[in-house]
Amino acid sequence: MRYRKIPDETVRRLPVYLRGIRLLSAQGQDSICSKALADFIGVNAWQIRKDLSYFGELGKPGVGYAVSKLERQIRKVLNLEGGHNVVLVGVGNLGSAVLAFGGFAQYGFNIVAAFDSDPRKIGKKKCHLIIEDVTKLSRLKTKDVDLGIIAVPGEAAQEIADGLVSAGVRGILNFAPVRINVPKKVKIITIDIAMVLARLPYYIPSAKNNSSNDVGIAATANGGRD
Amino acid sequence: MRYRKIPDETVRRLPVYLRGIRLLSAQGQDSICSKALADFIGVNAWQIRKDLSYFGELGKPGVGYAVSKLERQIRKVLNLEGGHNVVLVGVGNLGSAVLAFGGFAQYGFNIVAAFDSDPRKIGKKKCHLIIEDVTKLSRLKTKDVDLGIIAVPGEAAQEIADGLVSAGVRGILNFAPVRINVPKKVKIITIDIAMVLARLPYYIPSAKNNSSNDVGIAATANGGRD
Repeated sequence: MRYRKIPDETVRRLPVYLRGIRLLSAQGQDSICSKALADFIGVNAWQIRKDLSYFGELGKPGVGYAVSKLERQIRKVLNLEGGHNVVLVGVGNLGSAVLAFGGFAQYGFNIVAAFDSDPRKIGKKKCHLIIEDVTKLSRLKTKDVDLGIIAVPGEAAQEIADGLVSAGVRGILNFAPVRINVPKKVKIITIDIAMVLARLPYYIPSAKNNSSNDVGIAATANGGRD
Repeated sequence: MRYRKIPDETVRRLPVYLRGIRLLSAQGQDSICSKALADFIGVNAWQIRKDLSYFGELGKPGVGYAVSKLERQIRKVLNLEGGHNVVLVGVGNLGSAVLAFGGFAQYGFNIVAAFDSDPRKIGKKKCHLIIEDVTKLSRLKTKDVDLGIIAVPGEAAQEIADGLVSAGVRGILNFAPVRINVPKKVKIITIDIAMVLARLPYYIPSAKNNSSNDVGIAATANGGRD
């Protein structure tokens, strides 16, 4: 039994659904209709039904989705079952925030190694990890690490990405605000904070800006989330 | 002259185009075809043409888009012209990384204030800003600040968001991994690092996981970016 390839936009929303379902499950709910889930997480119900239908989750009319089954199914689709070991490169402010972030375990992520180039940091302990020398990235080959997080300055990011790929990492979350080239077999997602911030003003047109906005787009703030 | 409302997904890509166009412009290019821009930034050409057509940028066959005009147009559509003052709340590791991040100016963002609740931080200077007491958020009303960045723990995020909204902020970038309720007139975008990481494994199915993947989705790594 095979399903269509799931669109990137659906993959983007599945972790949001997963968190919502987990919270509802923790509240003791056994089943959930798309409308209630929609209200809970702030996505529209039609979108949820469409997204879940990509992998055959249709829900029962009047009953909805079985919460535990749906959670299991989404984890399976996202390939989160079994967990993933993650390596962090760059233990500056951002990297330290990543190490201290408590939200990874719920998705089965375990940060098992952290690297930096600063001799003052190498060998020091941070959040239960001894920071290692970034020139020893190849050491990862002997570990079962398939995801990496890059939190180094832009000018170093490509070299670090190359090192991670050589060490067997196939998925990279990159915080450096640069484009990084990776082989086709590797998936990279970049979070460029300024680029995300740059989307906000579109939704909050000011009188001042509207008057000079000769393209006349009727952008309205919509309290939307993503 | 009015255009259709621009889809969120297009708004998401416009800052990516803007960065690419700026880089090409810095290299001395006057015009650019969608194919060359596509190759440069790693988005497909059809998508670029469609996105730009939402605000009437059609390009000339065989010539492409005038770089400086396109840059101006995208800035205008995104409401980046004139610049925006930004406030940061939470100067821990993540907030410090945000303050030190050099990428904001290119989009016209200026971080003009930083707040924290820690008495040891309040009054201290960090990246040219004196950290202020978070209980004094209302002080922002007298300033022209319409965007806010929340880098506080999840349990404090809703209260901070309420304070920002009261102070006149209409766009919020939230790093706390919680859902925040804001009035309809306010746009909020949440970056939940774990949720972004949770999208990666889908694209790197392992032999181990595939064999137990009874939904049989043919996910293939595609070197995609976003």
